[in-house]
Amino acid sequence: MLDKPPSPYRIFTDRDVVDHLADLPEARERLGGAPRDWRVRDVADGNLNAVFLVDGPDGGVCVKQALPYVRVAGESWPLDVNRASFEAAYTARLAPHVKGLAPKLHHYDPGRFVLVMEKLEPHVILRKGLIAGERFPDAVRHVAEYVAQAAFHTSDLAVPFETKAADVALFAQNRALQRITVDLVFTDPYVEVWRNKVAPPLEPWAAALRADVALKTRVAELRLRYLTHAQSLLHGDLHSGSVMATPDDTRVIDGEFAWVGPTGFDVGDFLAHLVMAWYAKPFHGGAPEAIVRYRDALAGDVATFWLTFRRRFLEIWRDAEAAGDGLPPAHFADPAGRARLETFRQSYVDAIFRDAVGYCAIKIVRRIVGFAQIADFLVIEDVGRRAEAQGGALALSRALLKRPEAFADIADLVAALPAFEGAGLDPKRAPQ
Amino acid sequence: MLDKPPSPYRIFTDRDVVDHLADLPEARERLGGAPRDWRVRDVADGNLNAVFLVDGPDGGVCVKQALPYVRVAGESWPLDVNRASFEAAYTARLAPHVKGLAPKLHHYDPGRFVLVMEKLEPHVILRKGLIAGERFPDAVRHVAEYVAQAAFHTSDLAVPFETKAADVALFAQNRALQRITVDLVFTDPYVEVWRNKVAPPLEPWAAALRADVALKTRVAELRLRYLTHAQSLLHGDLHSGSVMATPDDTRVIDGEFAWVGPTGFDVGDFLAHLVMAWYAKPFHGGAPEAIVRYRDALAGDVATFWLTFRRRFLEIWRDAEAAGDGLPPAHFADPAGRARLETFRQSYVDAIFRDAVGYCAIKIVRRIVGFAQIADFLVIEDVGRRAEAQGGALALSRALLKRPEAFADIADLVAALPAFEGAGLDPKRAPQ
Repeated sequence: MLDKPPSPYRIFTDRDVVDHLADLPEARERLGGAPRDWRVRDVADGNLNAVFLVDGPDGGVCVKQALPYVRVAGESWPLDVNRASFEAAYTARLAPHVKGLAPKLHHYDPGRFVLVMEKLEPHVILRKGLIAGERFPDAVRHVAEYVAQAAFHTSDLAVPFETKAADVALFAQNRALQRITVDLVFTDPYVEVWRNKVAPPLEPWAAALRADVALKTRVAELRLRYLTHAQSLLHGDLHSGSVMATPDDTRVIDGEFAWVGPTGFDVGDFLAHLVMAWYAKPFHGGAPEAIVRYRDALAGDVATFWLTFRRRFLEIWRDAEAAGDGLPPAHFADPAGRARLETFRQSYVDAIFRDAVGYCAIKIVRRIVGFAQIADFLVIEDVGRRAEAQGGALALSRALLKRPEAFADIADLVAALPAFEGAGLDPKRAPQ
Repeated sequence: MLDKPPSPYRIFTDRDVVDHLADLPEARERLGGAPRDWRVRDVADGNLNAVFLVDGPDGGVCVKQALPYVRVAGESWPLDVNRASFEAAYTARLAPHVKGLAPKLHHYDPGRFVLVMEKLEPHVILRKGLIAGERFPDAVRHVAEYVAQAAFHTSDLAVPFETKAADVALFAQNRALQRITVDLVFTDPYVEVWRNKVAPPLEPWAAALRADVALKTRVAELRLRYLTHAQSLLHGDLHSGSVMATPDDTRVIDGEFAWVGPTGFDVGDFLAHLVMAWYAKPFHGGAPEAIVRYRDALAGDVATFWLTFRRRFLEIWRDAEAAGDGLPPAHFADPAGRARLETFRQSYVDAIFRDAVGYCAIKIVRRIVGFAQIADFLVIEDVGRRAEAQGGALALSRALLKRPEAFADIADLVAALPAFEGAGLDPKRAPQ
């Protein structure tokens, strides 16, 4: 059972937010004026936390407080507030490598579990932008850059093992949110459990997933790999709601699920949400030609995201001045060694891709038959039509899990999008 | 740089040992009599620590203190005394699962970095027994049982991920000794560095290992896997000097290298030392027929160790009442699922075997061209003859690293022992 949050924790009111900021010189300076001039808005949008935007005469800040329960579920689902400490630690750990791609952390209060961060404006949450049919030409490249930087610089390729071990030791304590990932992502969608939200038209699909032993075997492999493969520091929840964007600026937010795990988990997570946006798009309305154009752009985003990640990861690796303990340069210093190192690099990113394909599928499944559903589908009010969109994504996911060898590169994934469209609500008749 | 050990640490004299034990009720009771009746002997034998055996009228205890440097190297090679804390934690963590196969820990003093343990008698160090040509019919089975119990019960197969994460977080801090493993096991043998001890007749072999890009690629894979694959709590240094035995009792000691890593690392380590005993045996003297018989028994030990580990690991898994988060039973509850679970188990141990083959080779190489050499070879006084024995083991290791697919089961490894014997001192002419 979770303990009560320790004093001086209490759930912030607007008034508490102002009092808190009034004590922080960096926030005061950014806001300007006096505390009575500051305007506080509660803008909580995610599933877990309280979020406030505060504006003063000179500027704004964002205040995020971990609540002692799952916000969207209420007090009956308690959740350790200490998750905010891991988000603060994650943000600080990555700041030197992803500068400009994440909001600046102004202050963290470890007693009140409150982060004060840069207020992002006029950024919108990428998911909302995608649903609205807006384009963010640089966003997927920026997120790919973010993931490549984080993945390389926190891996054994880049740092002495002592640094890596310190990250592992710290984020291994981020257990409350890992429990959510273990249960909601990897377990619940494949059994019948109260938390799952299965729309009636999708019951046959949910039952088919629960009965598919080959699919669940692949899930088991990916699940064990998530728990055991301490490859790099993960964001852990890198969906399109964890990205805020303008046409030319992109920030990754909400790193509270941070965990040292397989790099492909973050890559696959972001891919999954682009893929789901593609399946949802025709059901958001609009002119047929505009839909086609927008989906082509989304399919291009899928390719661009992976190819940018791949290219940048390799470039960062090749250009790195220092090497970690994972691959000592002295072992590959002669001409054959240097050539082999390049082969080794290619194999390394190929393995990340294989992982990403699997985690992409797992993330799609959990968003459609699990607890935490996504607006891309939920904005489709007609449940029957929504299920049509979701059925295609589920059929693709089944193929990704059962025939991973058929997805050798990102082209295979992009080509598969239309192949599984209209798969329908009968999993036996859907393409395999 | 290492800090000085904090007060109240000081290096124990015999007198300090007695004073320390006099304060511990459990030790007093075990020793009996008064402190003036206790006899202290300094019996340090390993590379790192001070070890005392203390006898009283009623019984004895073993006292082990971490020294602030590498004992065999001296004060010029400082080493964090905190390693003793990890040995104590490792011993306590495994005690419920390996009872009877490890010495009882009576007391740990975290300020003086002193363990007080059961005194094992008439046990001998397995390595010494093997060199002396003694047989310990149950020892390899017992060590296999120990590794199987430890490997299963600390894995995601057995425990909630929170338990596993707590182990990971704790032992990720055991950095001083992991630095030794990273450097001495995985790095030094493949470069020229002052710590390596290469006997002149083995210079061509050492040069061949340093120049072999295919071999070093496999080493890189195994090295990255050691650093990233958090599969189960490892002993981390499971050679024949970490086992004490009588003909019917066996204890695994010295868990200070504990680390959550690939299970095959411990398995391969122990295999490596049986293999090296096999290659060394003819050079220890004795009647030719006795040598043949003893080597056949050692070859049998190689097979028995793996087969017992494999069988017991699978039995423990099948019989486990609780399941960890790695593989939820509810996902495999129907007839197809239960059948698949068995396939999954077989694949799981097969993967451990593949790892073990690689780590076996790496451990052989580091014992022959690295810093920490072993008595099995060192007791062969003639360096030329010693190198003959070592050349065979190195040739085998090269094959294990470069042709892992040729070692599909333990029979392949056992059959390879004589195939590489007499490989000689010229790596180009030695069998590949």
